Formats: sequence, structure tokens, C-alpha cells
Amino acid sequence: MAVRTPDPDPNERGDDGTPRDPRGFGRPGHPLGDGTFGSPAPGNAANPGWLTDVELAEARRRLPILYVEAVPVRTDGSGQVTQVGVLLRATPMGEITRSIVSGRVRYGETVRDALFRHLENDLGPMAFPLLPPQPVPFTVAEYFPLPGVSAFHDDRQHAVSLAFVVPVTGTCEPRQDALEVTWMAPEEAASDSLASEMEGGRSTLLRLALASVGALR
Amino acid sequence: MAVRTPDPDPNERGDDGTPRDPRGFGRPGHPLGDGTFGSPAPGNAANPGWLTDVELAEARRRLPILYVEAVPVRTDGSGQVTQVGVLLRATPMGEITRSIVSGRVRYGETVRDALFRHLENDLGPMAFPLLPPQPVPFTVAEYFPLPGVSAFHDDRQHAVSLAFVVPVTGTCEPRQDALEVTWMAPEEAASDSLASEMEGGRSTLLRLALASVGALR
Amino acid sequence: MAVRTPDPDPNERGDDGTPRDPRGFGRPGHPLGDGTFGSPAPGNAANPGWLTDVELAEARRRLPILYVEAVPVRTDGSGQVTQVGVLLRATPMGEITRSIVSGRVRYGETVRDALFRHLENDLGPMAFPLLPPQPVPFTVAEYFPLPGVSAFHDDRQHAVSLAFVVPVTGTCEPRQDALEVTWMAPEEAASDSLASEMEGGRSTLLRLALASVGALR
Amino acid sequence: MAVRTPDPDPNERGDDGTPRDPRGFGRPGHPLGDGTFGSPAPGNAANPGWLTDVELAEARRRLPILYVEAVPVRTDGSGQVTQVGVLLRATPMGEITRSIVSGRVRYGETVRDALFRHLENDLGPMAFPLLPPQPVPFTVAEYFPLPGVSAFHDDRQHAVSLAFVVPVTGTCEPRQDALEVTWMAPEEAASDSLASEMEGGRSTLLRLALASVGALR
Repeated sequence: MAVRTPDPDPNERGDDGTPRDPRGFGRPGHPLGDGTFGSPAPGNAANPGWLTDVELAEARRRLPILYVEAVPVRTDGSGQVTQVGVLLRATPMGEITRSIVSGRVRYGETVRDALFRHLENDLGPMAFPLLPPQPVPFTVAEYFPLPGVSAFHDDRQHAVSLAFVVPVTGTCEPRQDALEVTWMAPEEAASDSLASEMEGGRSTLLRLALASVGALR
Repeated sequence: MAVRTPDPDPNERGDDGTPRDPRGFGRPGHPLGDGTFGSPAPGNAANPGWLTDVELAEARRRLPILYVEAVPVRTDGSGQVTQVGVLLRATPMGEITRSIVSGRVRYGETVRDALFRHLENDLGPMAFPLLPPQPVPFTVAEYFPLPGVSAFHDDRQHAVSLAFVVPVTGTCEPRQDALEVTWMAPEEAASDSLASEMEGGRSTLLRLALASVGALR
Repeated sequence: MAVRTPDPDPNERGDDGTPRDPRGFGRPGHPLGDGTFGSPAPGNAANPGWLTDVELAEARRRLPILYVEAVPVRTDGSGQVTQVGVLLRATPMGEITRSIVSGRVRYGETVRDALFRHLENDLGPMAFPLLPPQPVPFTVAEYFPLPGVSAFHDDRQHAVSLAFVVPVTGTCEPRQDALEVTWMAPEEAASDSLASEMEGGRSTLLRLALASVGALR
Repeated sequence: MAVRTPDPDPNERGDDGTPRDPRGFGRPGHPLGDGTFGSPAPGNAANPGWLTDVELAEARRRLPILYVEAVPVRTDGSGQVTQVGVLLRATPMGEITRSIVSGRVRYGETVRDALFRHLENDLGPMAFPLLPPQPVPFTVAEYFPLPGVSAFHDDRQHAVSLAFVVPVTGTCEPRQDALEVTWMAPEEAASDSLASEMEGGRSTLLRLALASVGALR
């Protein structure tokens, strides 16, 4: 089975081809990289940070690519995690897998803005995620194209991912390739049966997330 | 000047004498220590974990006492800290000092419940604090009765405090001995002039809190 | 089966009865609380922080008791954990269980000194532990006398434990009630079969430790 | 004054042009990306992850570049930080500045290996750094080419840096462009006078490092 990971094509297209980022305009004080430095890329006059598919594919064979990932959770009134959100995703080849929120950090974009953007892409605009005040992830997941180097694997690229637990307070309406968000108890999220439905080491990432909030037994 | 720290007497009275804890009854699944184990203490039939003033004073000379502390913050939509809440407190001797949310963990009480209780005591019931899902504090502050052992000092006791940054979303109406919450920019909270108004190492704690959220320059 | 946890009696006797702490005298700049403040306790003229068995038993029914715990590990040249040390312990009743390094923080003692003292007690003087520069534990484990309140349970007391991963570079020669240190691969340390030999939630603590160093799958 | 940051040219040349990495061959189990995937890059037949100066310059205008940074420290027997190592560096233009260990993560290289490589490059082979078992940095520093977006600034690129505190036990003999390592007390390392000799936000990074080990007042 071909392993396809962090973010699948539909999302990448938005990431790299189309200048789609409504949020960048509405948030003064959080400037996204907006193409004011450097010369325009061929085929993308607006922003040198937006890459064509060919350019991104080339970069992925030459440089570690920076990602953010998020495990959405529900918490009770005292902050304790009660439920974990796991995405049901369709890969470009039509396979169905379980996953978490994941995506690339663009040129000029803060980690925080990238995290918000991918949460919104995957969970919809009414999810109301509460991003942590700390800039430090619960783990740094290193995805290598060759399996076995680490717990994480992505046959497309060497990706380094900053992974966060993010409480979500609103309603999730998955968009793009994320078909559904399934909320489950921490024990279920850590189970071997769920792990068998996840790829590239995501089940490990989920367990590390649960451990970081003291919800792993 | 006598240094009076973590939580002053008015709060302690509530802590140890009066069986005051409305929250304990409304939150099933978060049982406070309720005296079901052990025999009743002399003069306190309800709960062996509630200590008389004399008993608490004795314990403070014999054991490290566990505290929680919280630095209340306001965050923007992406989780970044924009403001820090500093308390104006009147000590039992009528001195006015700047401080943060602070108090003892009771017998049988979870750290999380103690944190919530002291936030409510100091900021009022409409502060709506968002307790972090992680159980790990940003620092462990060790207060010694003898100054100079660490950055933290409390002439009453050896206290070990788990300190958290807590985003607050509602309206703060300080109660008890906390007179006022002053919201200030991170730079002001880290300034030497504010530090001179704080005691027992609280200015250090505030700077460590700011550093943990990347808001210290 | 009676659950006996953090540190069994033989260790406690050293902790609280006998003024045994050779390290306290040899390390200038790390003063232990040595009874210079407060009046002497009855039956213990030297240090009010040393408690008789009766006094400690009483305190355990009235206050949360502060503990430190350590998971000893071996690391490779790049800091990655390769092995985990698990103690084989005899309880006072002669039962054999698996455990980790654990013990009480004394009055006047820093968390760091308590950690060093218990590592030395359990692993011997030639273990050469490398204590982390950070004061923050990988988790805060809350042991309650009533099972079910948290993942951690201790029928003797309400204990709050700061738990650390500590690389060990020397030779371990367990002392006191620790019979042996067994070094095992991270996968084995996280296994269900090992978990069945551990009590009071220690298997959970071990898994959280492994997660914090990215060694849990 | 032109701000030149994370790693200056001499280091980059080693990074990207010359296939120089003696460590990669001696450490089985820590495979560096070695060109086994993807087609050879023009002008660099051995490894597509080694970029020419032109290619790297191009990448820096299009993608966030992943960095590691390290603050070397000396610790006492209980792990407490006693001294901080600050580098004296000559920039390619002959300016002298204070800095810390810093460099790019290569394609196929683990964060841990990149950290070790840059420590060795800047401190020499006898520094004997103790890399932390945890994969999580004390902060994530985001360097933007446009000043003011964050506390960190690099006019060459958008770099995202995972920053670690690393105890060093041996003798430092700086190599390449690092002229000298100056060991100083934490207070001096946090001082405004030192800050004025550092560029791109490195003084902020140093203070965050000190805060993470409880050594900032």
C-alpha cells in the first residue's frame, strides 16, 4: 500500500497554486508572507512563496519541509481532555484512512498562522480552536521517505512536523478531503485497532499527544 | 519589610477552616478529598484535610507545602499572549503589593481543581479561565523560608509551587484580598519597575511565564 | 492485594527517622533545610523537618505529600534513549514488584537534591545520573488513596509527584529495598506484560516517560 | 548594519557544497539522508540534498528553512546551570558579533544529528555535548526576513529554528567562523550589555533558554 502523508493533494493545491487565504487579510498584526521580498516566481506573480506543483516536488527531494500537525480535543471545565478528534480522510487514490490535522508551513507564514489555517481547512470555520499560548509543540515528528529511520514515514518527502494538541470548542464541519471528524474517548484513540487504520506513524503521534495531556494509560 | 507570600491569611482561612467549596459539589467525576478516609481531626469533624490554623502552622515548619500559581493572560485569536493580568493585593498587615494567583493544594484535591479554585477566588466567578490540557507547569518554583537558596522566598514556609499560564476569557472581579487585576502588555509585565513592586521572587516567576509563551524579549 | 507505593518503609525510615544524609554536608551551595528555622520537634531535636513515623503517618492523612520520581535511562551518543531501567523491589510484606526511583521531598530540600538523593539510594553511588537542567518534570503524577480519581493510586496517602527522565552513565548497584535494576528496550518497558508487574499506576508513568522522549510507539 | 544570521557562509559551504560529514559514517542506526532516493542534482551527483549556493539562495526565498540552535551550558553535579557559553563569531564581512550554535538541518538528516553536527562544527570535537533525550525544543524561534513580524530576524530567509539547551562537558575549541566560546554566569548572559552585541533576536533566544532552565531572574 502506498503511504501518502502529511497533507494530500487537494490541500496542497490550495497551499501552493491558488492564492487562497481569506484569513490573511482579516488579521492585522499577523502579516503573512506577502511577496514583498524577492522576485516573482514563474507562473505565480503575486508571491514567490507559492510554489508550482513541479517546484514543490523538487523542493521535497532537496530540503526538509516544515509541517504543523494538530490533534483536536474536547476538554471539560477543568481543562482535562475528554475526547479526541480523528479525521476520516480520502486519499487522492480513493483510499480511506484515519488521520489528524496536518499541513505545510508556507514561506513568510508563522507557525501559529499555519496551524490555524490547517485547522480551519480540515475542521471548518466554526470549529473555534483554542491555540495554545506556548510556541513549543508536544513533540517534533520527523517523517523520512525511507521507512525505519524514525517512527514516522512519508514516501513523498522529508518532513519535520511541529505537533500540537488543540482544544476545539465549536462545531466541526470537515472540508476538502477530510470527510468526517470522529470524536472518541482517549482509550479508544490509543487503541491498537485505531492504530491499524492510521498511516505513516500517525498512531504513534496520537499516543504521544495523549501522553502529553496525561490521558494515556 | 516582612515578606508575606503565596496566599495571605484571608484566603488561608477559607482554605483550612471553613468548609467552603461550592464547586466541589457541582462537578461529578472530580471528587475533592472529602474526609472519607482517615479519622476526623480534632476540632474539624468534617474533613481531616482541613487543618486548623495551629495545625497548618505546624505543618509549614515540617513539610514542603504544595502550591499552585497562575499567571492570567489575554490571548488573540491565534493564541498569542497580548496582555498579562497582575493582581493588586492587600496583605494582612495592610501593605499593597503586586502578585499573581496563588494558593495551597488541599488534601484530596487535584492540582487542576486547586488551580480552578484559586483562580475563582482571586478573579471571581466570571473570569472563565481556560485551564491547559497539559498537567505540566511552565516552571516549578521552590520557595524557601531562608532567602537565597533559590530565586523564591517565603518566610512562612517551604512551598513548592506548580506555576501555569492561564488564558482568561471573561471579566475579572477580584474577591477576597485581591483588590484589582491590572492588565498590562508583556513588556510592562517584565519591566524592572513592576518587579520592584513584587515580593518573594514573583517578578522572576512572571518573567519565566512570559518566556514560556515566547513573550519575553 | 494491598497497593504499597511511592517509597516503601525501609526507605521512609531513612527519610524520616535517622538523620542520614551524607550528601547534605558535602555540597556547599545546596543547603538542605537543617533546622535553623523553627523550634525543634518533640523527639527530634536536630531538625524539625525530620518526622517521626507517627508524625509522618498523621501528615499523610492531612496534606498532599510532595514526591519526586525518576525513570533511569541509557542514551546513545546523540541523546536518544536506548534502554530503560526498571527496579525490582521487595515490599515490606515481601512481595516483589517492578518500580521506578521514587521518594519524598524533605522539608528544606530542593527538588533537585531530593531527586539526586533518591537516585543514589536506589541505584547506588556509582550510577552517575545526569539530572536535567530544566526544573520541569515530564508529568505531574497525582496519587490518591481512593483508586479511580486519577491514573495513580497510593493507599497510604495523597502524593503529588514530579517525574523526570534521568540518563544514567555509570554502574547501578541497587541499595536498600531495590533488589535489582533491569535494563530493557523501550518497547519492552511499554509492554502490557511489564505493566502487569507494576502497581499504583507506575506502568502509566513509564509510558508517559517514554512518550516524553519520543520512545513510545 | 546588515543583519546576518543563523549560520554564516563558511558554515553553509560545508553544509551544502562539500560532502563533509565524518560523523555520518561512524554512527550506525542514525542514517543521514545519503542520496539513495531521488535523482542526482545538477553539479552534485552524490546527494540531491546537498544544494549549490544558487539553489540554496533560491530555496531561501521560497520556503521556510529548518534550523537547529543550541545554547551550550555548564552544569553542576545536580544539573543546575552554572555557566552559559556564548560564541564570538566573525561574519563574512569581518564584523564581530556574539552568537550561539546554529545551523541548517539537511535533507535526510535527523534534528538530533543536525544538532550534534553544528555543535561539533562550532565547539570542536572535544566539547562532548550531552544532547537531551527529549525531542522538544525549549522554544521555536521564527526568523523572518522582514523585521518586526516576530522577535527574530534574518534578512536572508524565513528560518524556523528548534532551539535547545545543551550541557557541554569537555573542552571547547571553536572551529570555522566561531572564534571563541566565552563562558559567563547566567546573569551576565541575560544582561542588556550582552544583548547589544547580539543580532537578529539572539539575545531574546538566550533569555528564553535561561528561563527554561530556571536561571533567569
